[in-house]
Amino acid sequence: MRVEEHYDIVIHGGTVITVNDTFDVFPRGLVCIRGNRLARIGADPGTASLPPAAKTIDAGGMFVLPGLVNAHTHLPMTVFRGLADDLPLQQWLEKHIFPAESRHIHPDTVEIGSLLACAEMILSGTTTCCDGYFLEDDVANAALGSGIRAVLGQGIIDQPAPGVPDPSDNVAAADRFVARWQKASPMLRPSIFCHAAYTCSSATLQAAKKAADTAGVLFQIHAAETQTEGLGLKAGQPSPVKYLDQLGVLDANTLLVHCVWLDETDVEIIARRGSTVAHCPESNMKLASGVAPVSELLAAGVAVGLGTDGCASNNNLDLFQEMDMAAKLHKVHRMDPTAADAATVLRMATAGGAAAVGLGSDIGTLEQGKKADLILLEARQPHLVPLYHPISQVVYAAKGSDVRTVIIDGRLVLENRRLLTLNLEQILDRATELGKTIQRTVG
Amino acid sequence: MRVEEHYDIVIHGGTVITVNDTFDVFPRGLVCIRGNRLARIGADPGTASLPPAAKTIDAGGMFVLPGLVNAHTHLPMTVFRGLADDLPLQQWLEKHIFPAESRHIHPDTVEIGSLLACAEMILSGTTTCCDGYFLEDDVANAALGSGIRAVLGQGIIDQPAPGVPDPSDNVAAADRFVARWQKASPMLRPSIFCHAAYTCSSATLQAAKKAADTAGVLFQIHAAETQTEGLGLKAGQPSPVKYLDQLGVLDANTLLVHCVWLDETDVEIIARRGSTVAHCPESNMKLASGVAPVSELLAAGVAVGLGTDGCASNNNLDLFQEMDMAAKLHKVHRMDPTAADAATVLRMATAGGAAAVGLGSDIGTLEQGKKADLILLEARQPHLVPLYHPISQVVYAAKGSDVRTVIIDGRLVLENRRLLTLNLEQILDRATELGKTIQRTVG
Repeated sequence: MRVEEHYDIVIHGGTVITVNDTFDVFPRGLVCIRGNRLARIGADPGTASLPPAAKTIDAGGMFVLPGLVNAHTHLPMTVFRGLADDLPLQQWLEKHIFPAESRHIHPDTVEIGSLLACAEMILSGTTTCCDGYFLEDDVANAALGSGIRAVLGQGIIDQPAPGVPDPSDNVAAADRFVARWQKASPMLRPSIFCHAAYTCSSATLQAAKKAADTAGVLFQIHAAETQTEGLGLKAGQPSPVKYLDQLGVLDANTLLVHCVWLDETDVEIIARRGSTVAHCPESNMKLASGVAPVSELLAAGVAVGLGTDGCASNNNLDLFQEMDMAAKLHKVHRMDPTAADAATVLRMATAGGAAAVGLGSDIGTLEQGKKADLILLEARQPHLVPLYHPISQVVYAAKGSDVRTVIIDGRLVLENRRLLTLNLEQILDRATELGKTIQRTVG
Repeated sequence: MRVEEHYDIVIHGGTVITVNDTFDVFPRGLVCIRGNRLARIGADPGTASLPPAAKTIDAGGMFVLPGLVNAHTHLPMTVFRGLADDLPLQQWLEKHIFPAESRHIHPDTVEIGSLLACAEMILSGTTTCCDGYFLEDDVANAALGSGIRAVLGQGIIDQPAPGVPDPSDNVAAADRFVARWQKASPMLRPSIFCHAAYTCSSATLQAAKKAADTAGVLFQIHAAETQTEGLGLKAGQPSPVKYLDQLGVLDANTLLVHCVWLDETDVEIIARRGSTVAHCPESNMKLASGVAPVSELLAAGVAVGLGTDGCASNNNLDLFQEMDMAAKLHKVHRMDPTAADAATVLRMATAGGAAAVGLGSDIGTLEQGKKADLILLEARQPHLVPLYHPISQVVYAAKGSDVRTVIIDGRLVLENRRLLTLNLEQILDRATELGKTIQRTVG
């Protein structure tokens, strides 16, 4: 043993799926953590030769994976989970979601919803999320308390919004949010989130993008979610992507969310600009938005992450279910059983998502030098045996509830399904009570 | 209290979703079981007024549902879970599944696979399955040991099959299977399962249907799974459904599995004959078979159940995931967010499945007089709060892993996630070992 080989956490004996470029899998692997970094990944040398560590975790019979990256969330919307389902899109938005938001979204409810979301995400193996909403300071405080890693976008929309009653202040408000959180914590990256091209003027979009660029933070925007979205833009703009490109807001620092309705030129523009995409299959299915051309985007070299979207259109934040759904949706949509194979989908939920939200060099794979964000799944369960191909098993058979232990930035946040960072009982009580209040008013 | 009001099991305080014709939900409900029957369903009268019972279960904070009905399984195929994924259909079947079956399917492996399947099903809330495979006696013994309710179809195919080396004996073998199990247990109903119209001659199909009718048991057959299936039939037969109808095998005692490729006339024929359908969305998606016209079948009055299909094409037996997938698939496929609403999907997974497999008068709803097959889900979890609409919550947010307690035929088979009928550790050991053997031979 070399003197310097002492670690904070050593995890041994599990099936380690690295999701590195060559998709290396160690059937009995070793992961060593020093501080908040992955210091060594490889084969388990056997119990007698394990390096010394402050904490040693026997992961025998477990899968060890990079923590999942949820590339698109609206965390506070957990408070509206299941409030309105199976409705036409406009009725759902205008009669249910917008009124509920206008009535019930304030700092306290954003905090409760975000804490609930963080609990759900950690319990289902998500270690990083990329969020966009209003009152994002309260999202930030909740995320910080949970120990999750997050890119948090303060919302911009050209109408009164929670915390931003005067739309003319919306870009400045986002700019102030970014300034407050820019250096507040290594776990949080502020961002600017424009709702959409049809709800923000060209001036707003350009000012918001300029603010994001000046601060060096991610610019996020919903784009091409529905087939009719382009109709809301001014005449002569044939598609949301082309419109955004003409405004100059597409570059490597822009994350486009949904991208369901793209033509070949749109795909080519996104690839050329180096913009990234958050693919949200369950939301797109549930709202009947359509099926995003993910194979084309990936073939063009675009970084694509997987997102759950908000709880009002999913209705959960479980990326394991999202992976299974994505893999199956694209197969039947393309009538090709080789489409969206397990490795492609797992990469979207990890390395792809990391790249899409601007954290590709930090997280998304189990590789030496990256941040220590990883999850352990219990594999000795009826739905996970026998085991032939670990990657297939994780995508097609594993569930969020199989996650046993979660480490984020080298810190244990879930151990044997016990949340170490959050008071779960209190969160459940508060969210339940809030739900009753909301139900009374929408009754 | 009336003297006669004494029960074996009383369950109180949970959100009871009956799935009866009017979809009654009791936010604080009472379910009373006497023997193997539901004796009383209604509102919880409060702890002080609870009727006496041998066992009283406090279901506060839980959902109480009819046990789910898996309308199409191949239980032994759990041993091939994840063996071959993301492949073209013919390559998957001919290079992987058929060789693995021919080499590894024998009584011992069928028993292990079926025990594993029963454990997985019970742990995810399924109380009845409708199976079709070979060596079905061994499936029956496993099912019987697990306490699950099952319709079990001995397979018929015009080629050598496990346990039936001489295809000319296939109908007689199925007939003997039915005779052996006809009165063996109230929990099992034997059935005859012809693989498909393209793998069984018209003479075989007619003889098998006649044998099923004579014995009064369900006749099952895969039908119209793939777009090209009709091409395998003899000339002049425009579709599998029309072909089967011309052979006279469609009536109220025939379950058609998949029914992806139906034209309007096919739907009309199925409805007119009173035949039933097992819809297997995840399998149809994963194998890129297509999307079944479920709305049309339901509109025509056809009883449609939900099935997972075998584990080689899913890769799990979890009907909660299947419900969520079905609800979302049909929405995006039809570009209609009101399609396959939560109630419709929950009905398919319960009452619809019960009717589809010939048990509609016995199970599928929580109604007085029906068999006591029910499940309790823990609702106090981050992904299940707040609660606005119980049916939406169960379909879009709940998971199989939320199932805590399962009662089948009045008997507790799962209590607080502990399997009372099966030796889970032994099953996991045997299935794991078998997987290693299979992996060595398929290299």
